[in-house]
Amino acid sequence: MVGFAVLGCGRIGRMHALNVARHPRATLVTCYDKFPETARAAAAETGAVAADSIEAALAHPEVQAVLIATPTDTHVDLIVAAVRAGKAVLCEKPIDLDMARVDRCWNAIRDRDPLVMIGFNRRFDRSFKAVRDRVAAGEIGAVEQVVITSRDPAPPPVSYIKTSGGLFLDMTIHDFDMARYLAGDIVAVFAAGANLIEPGIAEAGDVDAAMVVLRAASGALVHINNSRRCAYGYDQRIEVFGADGMLQAHNQHATTVEGWTRERTRSRDRVEDFFIERYTQAYNAEIDHFVDCIEARRTPLASFAEGREALRLAEAALQSLRTGAVVRVAR
Amino acid sequence: MVGFAVLGCGRIGRMHALNVARHPRATLVTCYDKFPETARAAAAETGAVAADSIEAALAHPEVQAVLIATPTDTHVDLIVAAVRAGKAVLCEKPIDLDMARVDRCWNAIRDRDPLVMIGFNRRFDRSFKAVRDRVAAGEIGAVEQVVITSRDPAPPPVSYIKTSGGLFLDMTIHDFDMARYLAGDIVAVFAAGANLIEPGIAEAGDVDAAMVVLRAASGALVHINNSRRCAYGYDQRIEVFGADGMLQAHNQHATTVEGWTRERTRSRDRVEDFFIERYTQAYNAEIDHFVDCIEARRTPLASFAEGREALRLAEAALQSLRTGAVVRVAR
Amino acid sequence: MVGFAVLGCGRIGRMHALNVARHPRATLVTCYDKFPETARAAAAETGAVAADSIEAALAHPEVQAVLIATPTDTHVDLIVAAVRAGKAVLCEKPIDLDMARVDRCWNAIRDRDPLVMIGFNRRFDRSFKAVRDRVAAGEIGAVEQVVITSRDPAPPPVSYIKTSGGLFLDMTIHDFDMARYLAGDIVAVFAAGANLIEPGIAEAGDVDAAMVVLRAASGALVHINNSRRCAYGYDQRIEVFGADGMLQAHNQHATTVEGWTRERTRSRDRVEDFFIERYTQAYNAEIDHFVDCIEARRTPLASFAEGREALRLAEAALQSLRTGAVVRVAR
Amino acid sequence: MVGFAVLGCGRIGRMHALNVARHPRATLVTCYDKFPETARAAAAETGAVAADSIEAALAHPEVQAVLIATPTDTHVDLIVAAVRAGKAVLCEKPIDLDMARVDRCWNAIRDRDPLVMIGFNRRFDRSFKAVRDRVAAGEIGAVEQVVITSRDPAPPPVSYIKTSGGLFLDMTIHDFDMARYLAGDIVAVFAAGANLIEPGIAEAGDVDAAMVVLRAASGALVHINNSRRCAYGYDQRIEVFGADGMLQAHNQHATTVEGWTRERTRSRDRVEDFFIERYTQAYNAEIDHFVDCIEARRTPLASFAEGREALRLAEAALQSLRTGAVVRVAR
Repeated sequence: MVGFAVLGCGRIGRMHALNVARHPRATLVTCYDKFPETARAAAAETGAVAADSIEAALAHPEVQAVLIATPTDTHVDLIVAAVRAGKAVLCEKPIDLDMARVDRCWNAIRDRDPLVMIGFNRRFDRSFKAVRDRVAAGEIGAVEQVVITSRDPAPPPVSYIKTSGGLFLDMTIHDFDMARYLAGDIVAVFAAGANLIEPGIAEAGDVDAAMVVLRAASGALVHINNSRRCAYGYDQRIEVFGADGMLQAHNQHATTVEGWTRERTRSRDRVEDFFIERYTQAYNAEIDHFVDCIEARRTPLASFAEGREALRLAEAALQSLRTGAVVRVAR
Repeated sequence: MVGFAVLGCGRIGRMHALNVARHPRATLVTCYDKFPETARAAAAETGAVAADSIEAALAHPEVQAVLIATPTDTHVDLIVAAVRAGKAVLCEKPIDLDMARVDRCWNAIRDRDPLVMIGFNRRFDRSFKAVRDRVAAGEIGAVEQVVITSRDPAPPPVSYIKTSGGLFLDMTIHDFDMARYLAGDIVAVFAAGANLIEPGIAEAGDVDAAMVVLRAASGALVHINNSRRCAYGYDQRIEVFGADGMLQAHNQHATTVEGWTRERTRSRDRVEDFFIERYTQAYNAEIDHFVDCIEARRTPLASFAEGREALRLAEAALQSLRTGAVVRVAR
Repeated sequence: MVGFAVLGCGRIGRMHALNVARHPRATLVTCYDKFPETARAAAAETGAVAADSIEAALAHPEVQAVLIATPTDTHVDLIVAAVRAGKAVLCEKPIDLDMARVDRCWNAIRDRDPLVMIGFNRRFDRSFKAVRDRVAAGEIGAVEQVVITSRDPAPPPVSYIKTSGGLFLDMTIHDFDMARYLAGDIVAVFAAGANLIEPGIAEAGDVDAAMVVLRAASGALVHINNSRRCAYGYDQRIEVFGADGMLQAHNQHATTVEGWTRERTRSRDRVEDFFIERYTQAYNAEIDHFVDCIEARRTPLASFAEGREALRLAEAALQSLRTGAVVRVAR
Repeated sequence: MVGFAVLGCGRIGRMHALNVARHPRATLVTCYDKFPETARAAAAETGAVAADSIEAALAHPEVQAVLIATPTDTHVDLIVAAVRAGKAVLCEKPIDLDMARVDRCWNAIRDRDPLVMIGFNRRFDRSFKAVRDRVAAGEIGAVEQVVITSRDPAPPPVSYIKTSGGLFLDMTIHDFDMARYLAGDIVAVFAAGANLIEPGIAEAGDVDAAMVVLRAASGALVHINNSRRCAYGYDQRIEVFGADGMLQAHNQHATTVEGWTRERTRSRDRVEDFFIERYTQAYNAEIDHFVDCIEARRTPLASFAEGREALRLAEAALQSLRTGAVVRVAR
């Protein structure tokens, strides 16, 4: 059994706490939140003990693994503290908004050969993983094009936008990682953005929709489309086109029911939203993979280095947005 | 070029006249209807000449083929007259409502080894034919179950019901033929009916919905479900289940468009109705096959004998409806 | 928290034990199997204590609820014993193979107004339940036809068939219950069977495929088709056709991935098999509903009476199979 | 009846000749090809008369409409000649590879207020048109994103590539027009290309795959992806995403049949290829619209100006490909 501390018990932290508590090879030892009541609620729900401080949580002798679900600007410090305390780390994305801080973080921990995994949950989605595995098995030949559709049901509050790093760092970061997951290393980035949805987002200096084109080292092209609003739910699709065929992972619906009426036929439910519902299976598989990596001392599928690469693509996209030109991404 | 006379220029006769006129190896020579104006309208539309009488149409030296689309009670006499005039015949279903009359008709023409085809248009539907061809090619192994769904968009007028021979002779006759097309000879029939839609149909002594179970000589079971009303269009589906898999032919929609909104996703158009729109391709392929058979002196896929077999199943279904028991169908 | 004893720790009993153990408002107190090792394995897996005897399990003071997953011929005695011990009961289907024994069971417990639920898991499937709820909400008007497709991936061993009561009691019993769930009370039954798959099943006096037609008190017709073998997985579909439209619940696939290649397009995975995988959500919701009923003293959605009604339909189907005629089912 | 001359009787010219010949309000008067045998074959098939020269064809008193399906470099001269002869013109795309020649052409004919239509057949595809009409009716609110997938089954010979003007002028030109059809005027173009398929295409200085991003005057973003090779057929899809929902037009398959086997389920046929099969309905509707415009003296949906706009976008894409930067498209 792997003992866990969960730091940050907001929406996603609480979900992780429950997933850890239910995992057959994990125990939730303790959880912490800067609002003690939030920590106590999560503790009560899971049978864990609320920690009084981060230090107490990290010092707990039964804690082997630390799950970081606190605000982004605290990530790098917590990663360093946890690694120094000898823990394995699973940290929510992004590592940080600033590449220099990310690199300092890594420099501070690299000598310890730490087990740090970044929360790119989509890598663990059964359908996306099946696409990757089938591509790897050669089912569609060499990958030539990838199309990633990723649209949130509704924009977050503008206040959140302001500290989020903007669309590319906050939202597209997942898609940049999926691009790498499916097409490998990326060498060039072009990004176009738009303000179509929420004037406050424009005022905050961010875009609320985007279309990105990436070029992979393999020569494959990747398209990402994003929107901060999607009437029919949380639109999450992948298409990989290869020399010998295509694989598509479609949206998920809560039921398989089709309705047929005078007006229309074969109607399905709305698409499942939001991420906690849509990626239930993936979040559980993510914990499972992390536990596997701890038990077997393996490098996680979504490593610190992967988290850094996604951030580089987000930075390049921001630069492309500003210049209207392709940005080369050297390794 | 095969010269045609079309007898009966109502809805379906007029459609056939147009299809013949457009066929590259057929010419519409003449058309006849008991209402001269109807014949003249069809003639004007197709460039043919309206005939003054059936006799004149059949006597026309350029007419090799006669297409009979008149009311059912005239079919057998017209078949006999056309065959005696040396013509090939394509007659709309059913041959007649009465088996004795059907047999007398055949006895009157059999010595001439006539080319008589019955209008089981569904045999020529591209999707249904693909199912049959793929079954024949062994794709799903031995056929074990067939499910035929056949629901009309709206009931015909009660006045029509009264002379139609009832649901089984008028509507299910197509499905009986499809059952034979897909599962081969039938040896037993069970039918249940219901009156759920139009009280006038019950008053006319007919049912407006039915579920039928057939047993094929091969041992396969067949289910047919029928309804005289279908809110979402003309529901025409086939499922063939075999030892190694299943083939389904689904409904057709006018476009491939899917709509995604707040309320529902993946919504398609209504199903195409009615038969003239749904079976456009099949009706054209039916004419094509008939022309092929005339040119090559081949037996049509939907022969007089097939028409007689479908009628036998309809009669057995009627008897089963009355008795509540399975009716054996001897060959 | 509701304390549970699970009796019978074979495949389905073990699954239930795990589901109970994971349920937030239930505790698995003890489990029993006639093979002590089987009980110990289930206990180890769930943190429960293996009971030495049924008596010990039923006598445990923390046990409020008994889940019966033992062989069918033990069900009625265990139901009586558990109810007499003051427990709520969730018993796997069928209650028994013999109506007289079922009725004696009920007579022995009825005075206690017992909470007895029968394991008709499909009533709790999210998609089937959505169909029922949407029908109840009037979305498709009055129900006119129901088509239930239910095909197992592969036949059980012939030895099992011999004690199972045959296709209708063992397998179709679920479909009879779904028929009632969707179309209400049934008044007439017709059944046709076939032997197409496994000669040993015929030798055991059973059929391995069937088509059934039911008539509901409402006038609606219901079709059930069954097969003991299905190449593409566990085929579980529902279609409800009403005056104003249709609702279909389709098969489930492990992923949403579609494959496109030279040979074919839009290919999905095999259908999930078998029942434990296909109905994971339903089995959990079943426990949830049972716990709700215990906590709120409500009558379960799948009561003893519902179990008895499904058995009556199975018996009527057997009789129809023998006689080739419709069997009326009086209330 | 509108009398037609068809100039150029290669694959697409011959198809147009047949469509004109079958159209109820059109007559194919004459057809011309620089290979007299090709013209004679088309004439024989349609009942038209082969013309000895373009001059003879244009001079024919019964010819009101000229359909130009000759090689691209002859288009502008033939448009001018036909307009000067007082004819309406339907010219295949692109008008020309060179904008200066296009503008000279227009200047030479504009005073005559000519009826010139460009062969953007996809505007007449029933599904794409339904998307446009439903967008116009407000079904999905303001258009925010358009995704156009357009992949040919197999690359043309390299010899053809060399004179074709390259991917953007030869193939993407259709997609540029669709972008305008669905999102309105375009103000900026970014294009990325790749050489993944056919080395000869790279040697000819062209790309064989591309991803393009356009910005519409409305603010909407458009993505086009192209490939010269597609294993599963002729991939032609449209997705329009708006403030209130999404409309997708999917690929077409020859049948509605789904196959279910041990290995996979719900498999459809390959996608229909190539353009003549896929766009049968659209090509006929195109002729129909052209005849309508002639009869009613209306401006065609795909006018000379539209053809010029698509060419401008293709030129901008070429420039973006060279520079790696967004190209603004002034009006």
